[in-house]
Amino acid sequence: MEQLRKAIEDQGVGIGLDVVKVDMFLNHRIDTGLLFAMGEAWAEEFRSEKPDLVLTVEASGIAMAVAAAHALGDIPVVFAKKSAAVTNSGDVVEAPVYSFTHKTQNHIRVDRKYLPEGSRVLIIDDFLADGQAVHGLMSLCEQRKAKVVGVGIAIEKGFQPGGEELRKAGVHLKSLAIVDAIEDGKIRLREED
Amino acid sequence: MEQLRKAIEDQGVGIGLDVVKVDMFLNHRIDTGLLFAMGEAWAEEFRSEKPDLVLTVEASGIAMAVAAAHALGDIPVVFAKKSAAVTNSGDVVEAPVYSFTHKTQNHIRVDRKYLPEGSRVLIIDDFLADGQAVHGLMSLCEQRKAKVVGVGIAIEKGFQPGGEELRKAGVHLKSLAIVDAIEDGKIRLREED
Repeated sequence: MEQLRKAIEDQGVGIGLDVVKVDMFLNHRIDTGLLFAMGEAWAEEFRSEKPDLVLTVEASGIAMAVAAAHALGDIPVVFAKKSAAVTNSGDVVEAPVYSFTHKTQNHIRVDRKYLPEGSRVLIIDDFLADGQAVHGLMSLCEQRKAKVVGVGIAIEKGFQPGGEELRKAGVHLKSLAIVDAIEDGKIRLREED
Repeated sequence: MEQLRKAIEDQGVGIGLDVVKVDMFLNHRIDTGLLFAMGEAWAEEFRSEKPDLVLTVEASGIAMAVAAAHALGDIPVVFAKKSAAVTNSGDVVEAPVYSFTHKTQNHIRVDRKYLPEGSRVLIIDDFLADGQAVHGLMSLCEQRKAKVVGVGIAIEKGFQPGGEELRKAGVHLKSLAIVDAIEDGKIRLREED
């Protein structure tokens, strides 16, 4: 998606070999115009899959999930939580997710009643690298007998295996930008098809 | 705001004396249509204050901040973070916030460059009870010499002091619904003006 690619090229910062810092427009400060354009791009890709809810994980996935759900006609958003709050009912499904950013193992969880059996789920997240978060979200859907009809990602790290594994498994995956490498602080993007 | 009041009355659950559980449409599952109607209601209230960014705190404030920012013409959203990630620059302003939901003391932080000196800030959050989160966000703005032009809240707990304190201090506060009491699991809402 050209608008996201341009934002990454103009404002993104590569750190080391694998960190893509985009917190000036996506992960800390949000460029709202870009966000809703991304929502439209995912909606165009996945409308034919007829999702009836968007699933993501807190925190930085929420804005993107909301934009996609809005573009798909205001379907509901459900975000998996990383910590148990006193308001949790306890009637949840859970999956483990390792965060490479925070170097921690989390459990993500969703209240069973917000992920109904038979629902058609579009998973949206900001990054796809090793695929830990997406696999956790897919596990939640599997436990609830909900169908994952698509996975929409903002930025895929093409040099890590998560994206290729999902494509090989036949998952309908759309990454709006794919980073092929980080070289001397420069982010090299894959050409679009 | 009638649509939010109706959602609280139809779906909200009161727990004990002070917990308002609205995670079926606001805090875990999001009713996207309602969310964007809330964004329009805040935009109507605060458009004349000419905010140039919306500030909130992760995680559950993000969806509401995005909806408000969209209705205000796609102005940027900045969300304060609760934990230091490896991508943080370290050049941040911080404030302490006690969470009554999680019974924990957090520090919230914003990268200084995303809260520019002189900016006109609309603070958006889901709940206002003791006012801890709002005061933390106001402290971040004060440290950056940014002006808080308004505070938009989804649900104010009118039986806790945060809202009245802000109004007495002359803050332009708009709560879309005010809960006066929780009695035997029922949520009693204040009549609208």
